[in-house]
Amino acid sequence: MSLTRVQRAAQVACRRMADRKTPFIYNEWYVAALTREVSRELMSRTILDQQVLLFRKEDGTPVALNNRCGHRSFPLSRSTLDGDTVVCGYHGLRYNEKGECVEVPSQCNCSGISIRSYPVHQQGPVIWIWMGEAEQADLEKIPAMPMLEEGWVTSEDYMDLKCSYVYLHENLLDLTHLSFLHANTFGTPDYARANFDTDISEDRFLLKRYVVPTRLPPVWAKPTGLEDKDAARITTSDFVSPALHIVHAEFYDISLDESERPDQRIKTAHIPTPATADRTHYFVVHGRNFALEEDEVTDFMHQQLMAAFQEDVVGLQAVSEMIEEYGDSDDYYEISVKADAASVAMRRYLKRRAEAELAEREATAGMKNTPTQLTPV
Amino acid sequence: MSLTRVQRAAQVACRRMADRKTPFIYNEWYVAALTREVSRELMSRTILDQQVLLFRKEDGTPVALNNRCGHRSFPLSRSTLDGDTVVCGYHGLRYNEKGECVEVPSQCNCSGISIRSYPVHQQGPVIWIWMGEAEQADLEKIPAMPMLEEGWVTSEDYMDLKCSYVYLHENLLDLTHLSFLHANTFGTPDYARANFDTDISEDRFLLKRYVVPTRLPPVWAKPTGLEDKDAARITTSDFVSPALHIVHAEFYDISLDESERPDQRIKTAHIPTPATADRTHYFVVHGRNFALEEDEVTDFMHQQLMAAFQEDVVGLQAVSEMIEEYGDSDDYYEISVKADAASVAMRRYLKRRAEAELAEREATAGMKNTPTQLTPV
Amino acid sequence: MSLTRVQRAAQVACRRMADRKTPFIYNEWYVAALTREVSRELMSRTILDQQVLLFRKEDGTPVALNNRCGHRSFPLSRSTLDGDTVVCGYHGLRYNEKGECVEVPSQCNCSGISIRSYPVHQQGPVIWIWMGEAEQADLEKIPAMPMLEEGWVTSEDYMDLKCSYVYLHENLLDLTHLSFLHANTFGTPDYARANFDTDISEDRFLLKRYVVPTRLPPVWAKPTGLEDKDAARITTSDFVSPALHIVHAEFYDISLDESERPDQRIKTAHIPTPATADRTHYFVVHGRNFALEEDEVTDFMHQQLMAAFQEDVVGLQAVSEMIEEYGDSDDYYEISVKADAASVAMRRYLKRRAEAELAEREATAGMKNTPTQLTPV
Repeated sequence: MSLTRVQRAAQVACRRMADRKTPFIYNEWYVAALTREVSRELMSRTILDQQVLLFRKEDGTPVALNNRCGHRSFPLSRSTLDGDTVVCGYHGLRYNEKGECVEVPSQCNCSGISIRSYPVHQQGPVIWIWMGEAEQADLEKIPAMPMLEEGWVTSEDYMDLKCSYVYLHENLLDLTHLSFLHANTFGTPDYARANFDTDISEDRFLLKRYVVPTRLPPVWAKPTGLEDKDAARITTSDFVSPALHIVHAEFYDISLDESERPDQRIKTAHIPTPATADRTHYFVVHGRNFALEEDEVTDFMHQQLMAAFQEDVVGLQAVSEMIEEYGDSDDYYEISVKADAASVAMRRYLKRRAEAELAEREATAGMKNTPTQLTPV
Repeated sequence: MSLTRVQRAAQVACRRMADRKTPFIYNEWYVAALTREVSRELMSRTILDQQVLLFRKEDGTPVALNNRCGHRSFPLSRSTLDGDTVVCGYHGLRYNEKGECVEVPSQCNCSGISIRSYPVHQQGPVIWIWMGEAEQADLEKIPAMPMLEEGWVTSEDYMDLKCSYVYLHENLLDLTHLSFLHANTFGTPDYARANFDTDISEDRFLLKRYVVPTRLPPVWAKPTGLEDKDAARITTSDFVSPALHIVHAEFYDISLDESERPDQRIKTAHIPTPATADRTHYFVVHGRNFALEEDEVTDFMHQQLMAAFQEDVVGLQAVSEMIEEYGDSDDYYEISVKADAASVAMRRYLKRRAEAELAEREATAGMKNTPTQLTPV
Repeated sequence: MSLTRVQRAAQVACRRMADRKTPFIYNEWYVAALTREVSRELMSRTILDQQVLLFRKEDGTPVALNNRCGHRSFPLSRSTLDGDTVVCGYHGLRYNEKGECVEVPSQCNCSGISIRSYPVHQQGPVIWIWMGEAEQADLEKIPAMPMLEEGWVTSEDYMDLKCSYVYLHENLLDLTHLSFLHANTFGTPDYARANFDTDISEDRFLLKRYVVPTRLPPVWAKPTGLEDKDAARITTSDFVSPALHIVHAEFYDISLDESERPDQRIKTAHIPTPATADRTHYFVVHGRNFALEEDEVTDFMHQQLMAAFQEDVVGLQAVSEMIEEYGDSDDYYEISVKADAASVAMRRYLKRRAEAELAEREATAGMKNTPTQLTPV
């Protein structure tokens, strides 16, 4: 019941960090779906607590609308497409790609009726969406995905993570857990005790770990030819935005001079899109800059990595259930250790941004609600 | 996030209409069960948020009591019947048909102990119940079911609808949806654009639709012999009470003079009894005034209709889930269109009645709670 | 809606009795587990709303720690044991048996980091735990279990009861229910109407029932050789503590003089450990003082008793669901009858103790929170 001095201090400290109750950050590009997921079949996906209808026009352009019909709340994902027009499956209202209602059966005029549409942008294997203020939706703000550049080969996948996106970022920013959570996949015992540097700026958070010398796990040893060799494994966790985390790693034979080493690197984009407070769409785009033509290497690495990431999904869900149960109790605390420095800074940043944005939304809503007195239809 | 002018006006307007959060209307007769459902087996059904115990006395009379034993809350539906007496399955308290406790084991006197009983009335295929103030339970107020009169043949059924009863009434008062939700059963494409009249009074709401000329769907074409003919289909949706909605339809060959047309009508009672805020007992009594002796027509029409009504159950459940998720959010709104006129008036009526009744209950409770100081037993 | 005078008085009265919403009583020894359940496998059990990690040290001593890692809330029950040290399965923090963190990977110093540990004590077939204030954890306060003394043979078991522990105590303090809930197992029809005495003191509540003459059910008749004889069955329900209830019974042939009667008694410890407000760990230790060497008698009685107690589990769950649904409504009441005298006194006692303890905790928390201003780590 009563806390120790250290626990109490930790309790105070963790209240400054984002957690599952922190409001979402809307003014960011998030990944809505893998490119291959969106088709002429209407689909719905919950993003930042909104049900979003996703489909492609006849010319292939992706479209995102609110999934709730503005008339009587029927889910448009259970409706039909007529050309590029969505026809509500309940009373037949028709919406174009901008969310404007273009027809109401048994009524001549439907002007002014609309549902919200969301800017989307397809970039290679992923489709980005802007859930925030429309006027701020700038394509320039889409974060770069360096593994999509020339000279790299990629594969991508999707997992359903029953945990807040905050804890996935945290998981990625401290790879100490490779020695424990991933002991049977791509972790090695020396990982947790390896040296690391952090690089913390206002809105970017990096942690670089030097595991040298080490023996590589199969997922890295086989494709690089470094099996049974004393190798270097240097990994950088890079929080790019609330919507994107990139893990970079390089591998080499430490018996070779720097000039002799082949350039063997991987970059994995971990892409958490909040669905709800306790659920995250977890997209992965993994790339490498070697063995570019070898499909069996792609398959092997993809399979091995997804098995490891599935361990994160299971572990984070266990954490999420624990926090769901005890996060609001009087004696909840999280003690932070040295390896959490980047992660703590990142969680404080998420909280500051979320709260600043919320304050702005409320100020705007206050302004909008004040002046005009509206007549009910 | 921010709403358009039309959306904002719709938001204001829909706050005056009943929804799933509107209190129940107690002072009405509701259907508790189909006549064939109630037997000498004790059964429990939740009606207006109350668990009701239903059974028949040895002479066949139906009885309705509160299902919670007044002693230690054991469900009487898990108990036994001894003659016309319910014997609680936990500590053996005995209740007669009026809910009076007539015996407590190991105690001589049990006077004054009772649970609530509810007036019930069997009318052909259904059993009505009065959940409101006992002194207002007047059999005269049971709404008429014209398909139970002579010259009509009926069939009845029951569905479990996971949606507020408000949205079932709304569904029935605007049959635009036949062209969309029922496109594969008894809807036709011309239905949504057909002319209609409304008849809106203080407590009764009708909408009449003229689909002329049309081709009838099999459920009506086959039994009337109007297959492949240009026919009239004239349908009236009639909100009779919060507990009863009747849909009347007539069909004829438009090539015939009025005097030559056989009288071929159907009347379907749609009977929504609220179980909880988000669940409704949906009873149906369907009648026709032709082919009275033909059981295979009864079977055919019953099967076809129930398949169509099952589409309403599925569609309304989708609407209910959407409203459950977004109905309380700041940007929720429902835009009403011309075909909603009767339905909007009906939902305003339900809200007014519910709120007036609630105010009355609270006033009465205030009066009852004030004067006497009671001694705890 | 409106209550009768008796119902209203009952409503007022039952507000003074403990129910599922009454806070837990922490300063008591509770049974955490059966001795045979705890091993070198890490296990978690929720006790008084806390997840408790249970395991044995290499020397066999049982250990209880908070199951939540103090770092990032990973469940330690999904972790590993290294000797007597728990190694968190996420980031590898190590805890000793006192809950002190003895290592944080990639950090030299971990002094001060700790999680809560709980005093435990193994007593024959059960392991007791103290969830309250550590300074009050006195082994002397562990309630006596007389069936563990010499001259008795016992068997034990565990059931998962989805109901507040309050209602299990109540169930045990009034065995009227044997004639109804246990009509098919160890109840007889004459049980409910038998005479009884109560013995109510400040913190102990007994009810003694004399069923004389009676015919014993098989569970008692067979092992005592009293089949088909006019027998006495004298049973005492004894509330010993919030964590322990003992039912004593003696059986004899009423045709024998007191001096000729063999001493044939049973004592059953019913041990309710609250898991949550609506869930209870229900341990049973059953003992007898006759036929001590006969294992088949042990098996027969154990099987018969557990079948009967399973009827309580099912019945109490039905009661719990009813109270969950209606316990907070304005017209909820529980009418108490004569046979409830001991039980009502017991429930009032539980409520008084729980509220007194809560007040003390809040006073202490107030004091602790006031003086020092802590610096976040």
